[in-house]
Amino acid sequence: MVNIPPAEELAGRVAVVIDVLRATTTICTALANGADTVVPILSPEEAFQVARDNPDRQFLLGGERKAVLIPGFHCDNSPLEYTEARVKGRPILFTTTNGTRAIRRAAGADRVYIASLLNAPAVGRELARLEVDVAICCAGTHDQFSLEDTVCAGAILEYMAGPDRPVETNDMGLVARELFRRYDGRLADLLHLSSHGQNLVRLGMQDDLLFCAQLGTLTILPVFTEGQVVLLE
Amino acid sequence: MVNIPPAEELAGRVAVVIDVLRATTTICTALANGADTVVPILSPEEAFQVARDNPDRQFLLGGERKAVLIPGFHCDNSPLEYTEARVKGRPILFTTTNGTRAIRRAAGADRVYIASLLNAPAVGRELARLEVDVAICCAGTHDQFSLEDTVCAGAILEYMAGPDRPVETNDMGLVARELFRRYDGRLADLLHLSSHGQNLVRLGMQDDLLFCAQLGTLTILPVFTEGQVVLLE
Repeated sequence: MVNIPPAEELAGRVAVVIDVLRATTTICTALANGADTVVPILSPEEAFQVARDNPDRQFLLGGERKAVLIPGFHCDNSPLEYTEARVKGRPILFTTTNGTRAIRRAAGADRVYIASLLNAPAVGRELARLEVDVAICCAGTHDQFSLEDTVCAGAILEYMAGPDRPVETNDMGLVARELFRRYDGRLADLLHLSSHGQNLVRLGMQDDLLFCAQLGTLTILPVFTEGQVVLLE
Repeated sequence: MVNIPPAEELAGRVAVVIDVLRATTTICTALANGADTVVPILSPEEAFQVARDNPDRQFLLGGERKAVLIPGFHCDNSPLEYTEARVKGRPILFTTTNGTRAIRRAAGADRVYIASLLNAPAVGRELARLEVDVAICCAGTHDQFSLEDTVCAGAILEYMAGPDRPVETNDMGLVARELFRRYDGRLADLLHLSSHGQNLVRLGMQDDLLFCAQLGTLTILPVFTEGQVVLLE
């Protein structure tokens, strides 16, 4: 359920990658606001190189290191920066400490969905429809367990399950669902309790926290395929 | 909070090792019933060797592989086997798949407590008294997250905390406390939900599950020191 399973365990399964604070929330927001594509990149150097090699594509460079803007980049990792005015029709090269790495590591799955609280209900309903074996991969912070990603996993599981459609999970899945049930309706409180959330608050990013805590504001289904995140048609 | 931190992260801290199903529950029970000492051993072969090398000590051999009795051993890993009649005054060589390994790996801590639901309140109160930095090490099953060990960690944290004594934890600690609050009074239900619990039920070990789910029936404080688990004076 939680953490990234080794690549060989993803073959034949559908993966869902979650990094609520803030990479997958930001990717969802950028795509919902009309970005053409989001390309997860491992390092700032690689992003600069790709941008230099493809000047005609007019890449927007986004992401963070230590939660702040990378020198020379256009946007940091705040979803609030990825407005329609800024991203519509643009391809984005995106690199963050944990999230983009988690997405790339999930590439061995048959399909990779990108989820945040914003589109968790949509992703959950889609997975229910597919009736496949699902690996939920929580990016966390430096591979540590994280409250915000776990509650998002719980939300997806709740929306996957129906009265006639129980969902079998491992122990982490049970805890994730309990956590979501307990904090549904006050997810911002939970994000404020989380270790990563407290760090963002210390950096003055309360608005990001509130934005990332919104449940079900988007119905998009972003998938990672051929090296980039695009919306599923 | 959860899983075994690397040895170097334990130096200067107090560790608590938990393997509710069933190693630490069984160790607590054996010591409460008068066993002289419990020596965690990594393999059955090592146990036979130690017993052969020390015939005068009349070791009792206990533990499991794949949840059942090891051929040539006296007892399996069920706490119900470690009655006063059988263990009083005896030293025990004990080897299980996950629990004994977790105990040995925690040896780098300044002090290592052995906890189960049976003595979780006692351990929590003791840690509150000590006012030290604590690493809670959940044995889990093959290093997977486990419901039963996490809820026990939550119980310890609840008893550590007081109205004037907040306990700072990482995200896993917050989830553990939530889980305990939600299942306090019906811990047997939670153990039945857990992946490991379901496995034991399939093997006909429901009675073990009910025994392991008892909260606070013991006030003992077992510690792992110089290669063996003994009661703290």
